[in-house]
Amino acid sequence: MERIEHHASFDGWQDVYQHDSETLDCAMKFGIYLPPQAANRKLPVLYWLSGLTCTEQNFITKAAAQRYAAEHGIIVVAPDTSPRGEKVADNEAYDLGQGAGFYVDATEAPWSDHYRMYTYVVQELPALIESSFPASQRRGISGHSMGGHGALMIALRNPGRYQSVSAFSPIAAPTQVPWGQKALAAYLGADQNAWKQYDTVELIRTAKEQLPLLVDQGLSDEFLDSQLRPELLRSTCADAGHPLTLNLRAGHDHSYYFISTYIGGHIAHHAVTLNR
Amino acid sequence: MERIEHHASFDGWQDVYQHDSETLDCAMKFGIYLPPQAANRKLPVLYWLSGLTCTEQNFITKAAAQRYAAEHGIIVVAPDTSPRGEKVADNEAYDLGQGAGFYVDATEAPWSDHYRMYTYVVQELPALIESSFPASQRRGISGHSMGGHGALMIALRNPGRYQSVSAFSPIAAPTQVPWGQKALAAYLGADQNAWKQYDTVELIRTAKEQLPLLVDQGLSDEFLDSQLRPELLRSTCADAGHPLTLNLRAGHDHSYYFISTYIGGHIAHHAVTLNR
Repeated sequence: MERIEHHASFDGWQDVYQHDSETLDCAMKFGIYLPPQAANRKLPVLYWLSGLTCTEQNFITKAAAQRYAAEHGIIVVAPDTSPRGEKVADNEAYDLGQGAGFYVDATEAPWSDHYRMYTYVVQELPALIESSFPASQRRGISGHSMGGHGALMIALRNPGRYQSVSAFSPIAAPTQVPWGQKALAAYLGADQNAWKQYDTVELIRTAKEQLPLLVDQGLSDEFLDSQLRPELLRSTCADAGHPLTLNLRAGHDHSYYFISTYIGGHIAHHAVTLNR
Repeated sequence: MERIEHHASFDGWQDVYQHDSETLDCAMKFGIYLPPQAANRKLPVLYWLSGLTCTEQNFITKAAAQRYAAEHGIIVVAPDTSPRGEKVADNEAYDLGQGAGFYVDATEAPWSDHYRMYTYVVQELPALIESSFPASQRRGISGHSMGGHGALMIALRNPGRYQSVSAFSPIAAPTQVPWGQKALAAYLGADQNAWKQYDTVELIRTAKEQLPLLVDQGLSDEFLDSQLRPELLRSTCADAGHPLTLNLRAGHDHSYYFISTYIGGHIAHHAVTLNR
């Protein structure tokens, strides 16, 4: 593992590391914000999963999360959104292949050689973080759009592994919208039963743990009705009795201006549980 | 003038406009943050001048200033750093030509046709802002690196026009360092007497107004000793009795991680005077 960026930020450090991922069989980068409290003790970790086309850079440069992470004493880890490199399968489209891993373990060629972002995010990355940094085993997870889908889905599938979860503008029901249907068909094949394990709305129906969901959604989001469909999340949570706070934000779009406006509230939400 | 971006941010709006600049004889873009108070009354304006290679995008996406601008009720305007376009002279180097206007009015060919960023920032842009938006005539100015030079130099040359000024990592003495010498020789010619009107350290010696300067400088800045030289600013202000607050920040580099950490303090500094 090699540190490739190192920037002072709010009395802590915003770093970027590169390492060879065994799960993904390629070199991977991740951003890690180490708040000032990390100099003295182990801290909980918030994992942030980014959206389509993003790398590890988008969140760390645009979300303005460092101030809040420093206030609450939380490490924030932001991985890349897919395996990368010349030997890794890709597609011309922005919503498939590199930059669009969808946080699943692919089973179909040519994707199955490298596209195992689910296992990378759930297993390999936390093991690396917890053995290499002053990180406790208390974990939160959040993300945006494709990464909001990833965060909710991963928390729901791993009861007890994450103490808190939230999402911005998540693809709440990927099996029912074009972005998700395209990616899941490519990565998992035509059998739609295999898709359901990666669909938040499906997972809520059978959730064994009532981990409260915090979701923010902009009402001027250009993908609201076509790809995100928060009403499916709301009705499913209501039917299942699953705790959901869904904040619908007038005027807000799908950009990082939306995330930076409300990331402070999300980090405070995670801190309540992670620092307990 | 055309609005080309419109994003909700901290109960206000982060917009980007494009207009045809008469001064620069080309199309220009600027970012403008309109805080929520702008819906009800005229507000003071903080002008932000960016550094080498930047466009109007860098500050608005990376500095995390919107929260503080909303708290204090200040409009923030961030112009591009040079004239732009195919008909505008350019140079292969990152530190000359497009992206490197240095906030001067060029007198030498081929630059003098378009490179009049001094007049654009001091006259044309404020006139446009104050006639098109709910902006009062109370003005602050700040910036980073080349833009820190621009902010200090412009405030010192225009007594009474700006009520507050600050800078991050400014090129404090451009006539004495390589970046400045290269740009000033190209834009203004070989006569170094013509350069002095654009040099903060020179201007402080004859300043007619004691406008207090707030400057933040990272001590791990890779350009500290070669290009920025805050010690010249300190000694000149001491000799001239010019009020200077120079914050030297351990560990901080030349990046926007430095700016985002301290921009809140700078906006508070401007607000004390601008909201008086």
